[in-house]
This record gives sequence, structure tokens and C-alpha cells, in this order.
Amino acid sequence: MRATTKRLFLCLVLLSQVVLPPAASARQRARRVDLIVSGGAVVTMDAGRRIIEDGAVAVAGGKIVAVGKRADVLRAYAAREVIDARGRAVIPGLVNGHTHIPMSLFRGIADDLDLNEWLTKFIFPAEAKNVTEEFVRAGTQLGLAEMIRGGTTTYCDMYYFEDAVAEETERAGVRAVLGETVIDFPVPDNKTWPDAMRYVERFVARWKGNRLITAAVAPHAPYTVSEAHLREVRAFSDRTGAPVVTHVAETRKEVEDVTRDHGARPVEYLARIGFLSPRTVAAHTVHLTEGEINLLKQHGVGSIHNPESNMKLASGVAPVPQMLRAGVLLGLGTDGAASNNDLGMWEAMDLAAKLHKLTTGDPKVVTAEEALALATINGARALHMEKDIGSVEAGKRADLVVVDLDALHQTPRYSLYSHLVYATKASDVRTVVIEGRVVMRDRRLLTLDEPLIKRRARAIRERISRSLSAPGR
Amino acid sequence: MRATTKRLFLCLVLLSQVVLPPAASARQRARRVDLIVSGGAVVTMDAGRRIIEDGAVAVAGGKIVAVGKRADVLRAYAAREVIDARGRAVIPGLVNGHTHIPMSLFRGIADDLDLNEWLTKFIFPAEAKNVTEEFVRAGTQLGLAEMIRGGTTTYCDMYYFEDAVAEETERAGVRAVLGETVIDFPVPDNKTWPDAMRYVERFVARWKGNRLITAAVAPHAPYTVSEAHLREVRAFSDRTGAPVVTHVAETRKEVEDVTRDHGARPVEYLARIGFLSPRTVAAHTVHLTEGEINLLKQHGVGSIHNPESNMKLASGVAPVPQMLRAGVLLGLGTDGAASNNDLGMWEAMDLAAKLHKLTTGDPKVVTAEEALALATINGARALHMEKDIGSVEAGKRADLVVVDLDALHQTPRYSLYSHLVYATKASDVRTVVIEGRVVMRDRRLLTLDEPLIKRRARAIRERISRSLSAPGR
Repeated sequence: MRATTKRLFLCLVLLSQVVLPPAASARQRARRVDLIVSGGAVVTMDAGRRIIEDGAVAVAGGKIVAVGKRADVLRAYAAREVIDARGRAVIPGLVNGHTHIPMSLFRGIADDLDLNEWLTKFIFPAEAKNVTEEFVRAGTQLGLAEMIRGGTTTYCDMYYFEDAVAEETERAGVRAVLGETVIDFPVPDNKTWPDAMRYVERFVARWKGNRLITAAVAPHAPYTVSEAHLREVRAFSDRTGAPVVTHVAETRKEVEDVTRDHGARPVEYLARIGFLSPRTVAAHTVHLTEGEINLLKQHGVGSIHNPESNMKLASGVAPVPQMLRAGVLLGLGTDGAASNNDLGMWEAMDLAAKLHKLTTGDPKVVTAEEALALATINGARALHMEKDIGSVEAGKRADLVVVDLDALHQTPRYSLYSHLVYATKASDVRTVVIEGRVVMRDRRLLTLDEPLIKRRARAIRERISRSLSAPGR
Repeated sequence: MRATTKRLFLCLVLLSQVVLPPAASARQRARRVDLIVSGGAVVTMDAGRRIIEDGAVAVAGGKIVAVGKRADVLRAYAAREVIDARGRAVIPGLVNGHTHIPMSLFRGIADDLDLNEWLTKFIFPAEAKNVTEEFVRAGTQLGLAEMIRGGTTTYCDMYYFEDAVAEETERAGVRAVLGETVIDFPVPDNKTWPDAMRYVERFVARWKGNRLITAAVAPHAPYTVSEAHLREVRAFSDRTGAPVVTHVAETRKEVEDVTRDHGARPVEYLARIGFLSPRTVAAHTVHLTEGEINLLKQHGVGSIHNPESNMKLASGVAPVPQMLRAGVLLGLGTDGAASNNDLGMWEAMDLAAKLHKLTTGDPKVVTAEEALALATINGARALHMEKDIGSVEAGKRADLVVVDLDALHQTPRYSLYSHLVYATKASDVRTVVIEGRVVMRDRRLLTLDEPLIKRRARAIRERISRSLSAPGR
């Protein structure tokens, strides 16, 4: 009996190689990949703005190897792991162009105050008394967890102890441009300018070639870093290729101060001293003349619009429609959670679309599609990373977000762009893939310990409140 | 054996009445109530803005009978049903002061267009071809479900077939002021002015004395309803006590048109013809002079600020800080989902706080506490319902919302008001009580069939798209 079974089995196997239908034999020839995100509307954000209904994305070695109709992708590829995205949207991972991630621990520490009062009475004392490497690690984990939950796969940061930020970010599997802050006064990690530049040198060398982490230098702003130091930063960037992340033209006061001290407005001044380059990322750029917009464009500077922070701190409205018309590399950011008060890119997109309609009086400016572009492909361009991220295209790194489309607040659906920008929330993000690795599946974080992060954040908050002798209200 | 057990039991019972500790004997004397929401921070929004940490709320007959420390409430009351709110916030139900609830079915039907194009190419044709009583019922259920999920317990609506809206709203257990739209041209439910006023007459009579539903008349706007008809509406309101819900001074064009036709700006004109009263609810009031702000105050008119709709349609910025200073009864609304694109009050609060900081250049105006007040007690005042709702106080109707406080985007917590307004999302709303009835428990809707609502909305959307011969993009 056993011998008969064996022979029968062998016979069937041989037969199958002859008579199997084309689909099955094709499957045998299918290329093995690591992951297929299968089904759903793939919102590519490619140059043609293709939306592939019932699409699929194949991923191998951290890269996208194919994007197309589900049937075609499944015919050509077989994966170890399949994510079912049917009925959902598959979008490029969101790019948060400006954060101070450890400041998540200062979320809501002080609100509804003058910028000066906010900084001098709360933020600066809280930082002076509390910002250690341990604080930075805890705050980074908190921010990373919130960002993954909201579908952010790349962020651009400026803070202290960025080497620790980098370690935590790599461990969580998130992509980032991390700028170690350099500034003309003592800060928590470096007490002198030479110390800070030595830190930056080591930091940039250490992370060179890392797939997830791009180490950068972050001179705080043109009014807090001297001209000589800004020139030194530019030279460092030229020598190492490190991006330069900075704040530019955030407030009227900055424009007045820089104009008084340097005889030129911030962007003019930075252009004049040779600071601007296609490796610069300038956050805010709120107060700009037409000439300054053109300077940003000419020098290939990436600009980051932070609508919520600019509103909450009453900084002003960045000339986004004009920058888009001029072709400035423009992305979108949240700023730190101390001035927003969250790291949510969905609200940033919604506001980017709505704010400029209001201020221009034209409901046609910054469409939903343009707002989604600011948070994806144009955000990638602003970080000078568009070759690697920002759209769902073969050859790019596999940073993908699967978004539910069937919540009540999303029902019914007419246009996908409108749906994503005006109706979708962070709570609709289901699954997040970065560099081909699933970091959240069905809303469960896979690389971070959420309960531990929360416990630690609460403990540190107790310490912060005590340090300010301002108990939680 | 059995007899012995019985005797032992009796003995214990008798003994217990003698030697039980005070707490237990107190519990025996505790007043029976229907529901206790127990634990958590009770954000009362009462005149003293009390926040009761580890508080509780006792509810009987649809009303709040006690608010206090948990230990005190549990000593004095015993409930059939207890909702555990420990670690959470208990806030007054949110008041959405301006909606067109059935238009939820038009969510995202057309965006990023001029108001005129939006209305004439999409909204009016879509309404003419699709708005039936069936449509209104389906759209109302969709909007109700979304609003309950977001913690809204009272809303103020303007649309057609409001009698059907009322039936669906009462069935779902939600509180509302429902204005049947009257306007000087044929609309889906009434083709002539006399027909519309007869409908309103029946509608208001039918719902008189209902605990949840306040039937109202809703003349569309001063530029779409004649002076004679506006006077007729005021007389009807005087005779019946019905609220009058309307749009006022939403756009610059309206101000120009009314000024041209009546020689006065909208609020001035409405005051002059005797239209304004302490039963009026005026949505938008964007374009106002100081004199008009004073007229709103003098006549006891309720105003509703709709920041998101005003931004998206580029209508302008309502003078909220000035209205607050003048003591205008000011609430907050979302407007319809076709121009927002959702019914979320959390985003409305966040934006109300942020928008006016930006436009005044003063980060101290419209604080988080003031924004929460706009959505609760001041919203209740604007709807002329502050005796019944808007705060957690004994004697008021029991409209309560239990909000989670431990999401990542809410971690850590310093100030509760800031936390609620700047960081909390609709997805953090856990349990909703209206008129003492639990309508959502642990995020599960108890009075509405969510899957059915979604299926029906999708089917109607198919019909709408076909009717516009504009297939979904």
C-alpha cells in the first residue's frame, strides 16, 4: 500500500509538470520577494500621479521591486509575507519635515503664551534642568511611536544628543535626517562651539552609509549662530556631504533682528554668506519676499512648512502658494509636540490645504492632491531624498502605509485625494512598512514597547513638573 | 444540614445589621440612581471651571443628580449601571452648533473649488437629483454615528425633511435643534413658501415638549429669503417659541449683496426688520463691524463659529476674540461634511484656538479652556439651552462624554484643557451618554447599526455619482 501511494504521488508530480494550467506554472517561475502589499488603491504619487485600483506592491531587500495591478504582481512575484490591503489605500510613507522629537515629553507643558514667555519661563528652564541623554531616548521613543501610528516613515529632526536619537530611531526601524543642533551658547550636550562641532564630526562619520539614518548638522537659526560659525557649517557640509538643517525666517522679530545686525533679511543674508546649498533644509520660511523665494529656489534649498506651529505661536503664514508657483522644494512638518501639540501629519495636510485658501481668499489653492504631495514626494524633495523615498515606484526604498478607508468619518468616498487629506485621521492608519520591514501591523507596534514608553514618559513628566515647581494643572 | 445552613445564614444577616461598618450601612441607605460615571477627572465647565480629580457623576431620570468626589458620590448613591472612567476625563457632551447632517452623503463630492462653482456644478445639482426623505434618513444616520463617535451629544441642523431628521435623531438618542429650511425657491421637500411654512408649523407642533428634539425654523439666509418672509418667520417664532436658525454674513459677497439691496449690512438689516431675538442662532457671522457685534449681543443672538468650513471655502475669519470680549453668545460648529469634510468637534476646537492666534498675532487669545467652552457651555448658550446642557452640574440633563487620556499622542499630560483641545482626537472618545442613556460604550455604538449605515451610504453614493455623470475619481 505504502509503495503504491508513493508511486501514485510521483506520477502526480510528473503529470503536474506537464498539464498544470498556465497560472500555476507561472507561479512556479514567480520571483521570490520578501513582502507583497496586495490589493487596495495604490496612490503612487509618481510623476503621472497614478492611482492603481486593486493594485499591489512587491518588496525585496528593503526596496520596491514592482508596482502594478494585483493580478500582474501576484503572477510575477511570490512573497514570504503578504499584507492584505483590499479596500484600503496604499500610500507612500509620510515625510515629517521638521520635528524636535524629544520635546514630545514637553507636550502641553505651556500653551497660549507669548513666544518669549513660553521660551524663557517654560521651555528653556525645562530643557536646562531635564534634557539628558536618557530624556532624549525616552522622548524619541515616544515620538517615534506616535509617528509610526500616524503613518510617518521619515522625519527630519533638530535637537541635542542626536546620536542617541539616531540609535533609537534605527532600532525602531524608522528613517530620519537627524540634525545635531549647534548654537552659540552652552546647551545640554555641548558647552562650547568646538565641542559641538567635534560631536557633529563624530556623529556624521558614525552613521555614514546607514540605510535609515542620515546624520546632519543643525545650526539653530541665523540669529543664534554667528556668521563665522555658519560659514564653518557650510564648509563642513561641503567636506562631508552632510545635510544642514536650520530654522529660517520664522518670526517677524527674527527678520527685524537679522536685518538690523546684517543689513539684509534672513534668506538674503544666508545667501550672501554662502550658507545656502542643495543640502540645506530650512524650516518655517514664513516671512519671505519674492526675492527670497527666488533665492531658495536658485540655491536648491528645501523648505518646510509648519502650519500648526506657525498658527499656535502666531508666527505668521508662509507664502506657500507663491513658493509652489516658484518651484521651491517645499515639504510639510509638525514642529515639536511642545508647539502643536502633536506629531500628526494628517492634520498638517488638512491645514496646509485649508490655511492658504483662507489667507489668499482662493479656495482653489493648495488642493488636496498638492497637500498630499507636500507630505510625500515633495517632502522627500525638500529633504533632498527624492531618489529614495516619497512615492511608490519600483527602485525606491519600500516605505509604505496602508490606510483604512471605511471609518464613518470617511464614508462615503468620492475622491481619494480629498478623502485622504480632508477626512482621514491618524487613527485610520493600519499598517506601516519602512525599508521593507513591517513596523506596525493592524495598528500594533512591532518595534517599540508602547506601555513601557508611556510609563517612562509619565515618570519623566513628574520630574519635569517638579523641576519647574509648577505642578501639573 | 440544610436547616442548619439556613439558620446560620439568617444569623449572619441579623448580625450584619448590627455590626456592619459605617460605609456598608451607608450604602444600604444610598439613593438608587440609574447610572454612575465613576472615577476620572470630571471637567465640569461650570462657572468656577471646577475640575474634580477622581470624581463621579450620578444620573437619574436623564438628569445629573450629583457631581463630586468619587468617594462621596459612591457613598450617597447606588446605581444599576456603573461606567468606569478611572484615568479618563469626563466632560460635558460636545455641542456642534452648525451642521447640515444629511450632507454627510456629499462628503468630498467636490473640493478645492470656488464657492459658486462648488454650489452650482455639484451641490445644487446633486441635491436636486438625490435629496429625498430616504436620502435624508440615511445621511442623518451616517452623521449621527460619526458625531456620537466624536463625543457630540447635541447638534443644531438646517436641511430639508427635518421631520425625518428628527425621527432618526430621537431614535439614536441624540439631542438636537433641528431647523427646517425655508427659502424663496423650490427645494426637495417643499415647492412653495406657504407649503414650507405649513411643514414648519406641523413639525414644530409635533415635537413640542420632546426631551431630545427641539424643532426650529431655518430661513436660509438674508439674501435668499425676502424681508416679508423673514418677518413672517419671526412672528411664527414669537407665537410658537421655536428657535430660528440661519446663516448670516458668511461671505463678502453676501455683505455686498445685502448692502446693495437693503442699504445695510446683514446684521444691521436683520436687526432693523426685527428679525433678531434671543431665539436666533446665526451660523458663521464672519464679516461683522463692531456695531454688528454689539447688535448680536444686544439682541441675545447665538452665533456659531465654523473655522474649518470658513477656511476651506475661503469665506474669511470670524472676529472671535472681539465677539468674546463683547460677550456675544458664541458656540462652535463644523458646518456640513461637504465643506469641512467631517463633523469632528475636536479639530474645530483645535482650530478655533489656533486660527485666532494667527490672525491677531497674539498667541494668548482663544485659550484651550476658551475653545473647550465654545464647544460645551458657550455652545449651549448660543443654542439658548444653557439651563439644560453644556456643563456637568446637578440639575442639568445627563449628557456626558468619557475620553481616554493615555494615547501616545496624549502622552505625557501637563494641563487637562491643553490636553483636550490640542492633543485629543475623536478616536480618544470612549463612552457617550445622552439624556442618561449610554449611546456608545467602549467605542461600540449602541443605538445605530454601523455596518448597515456604511453599506447604505455607499449605495447612495453610487447613485449620486451616476446622477452627476461624474464617476468617482
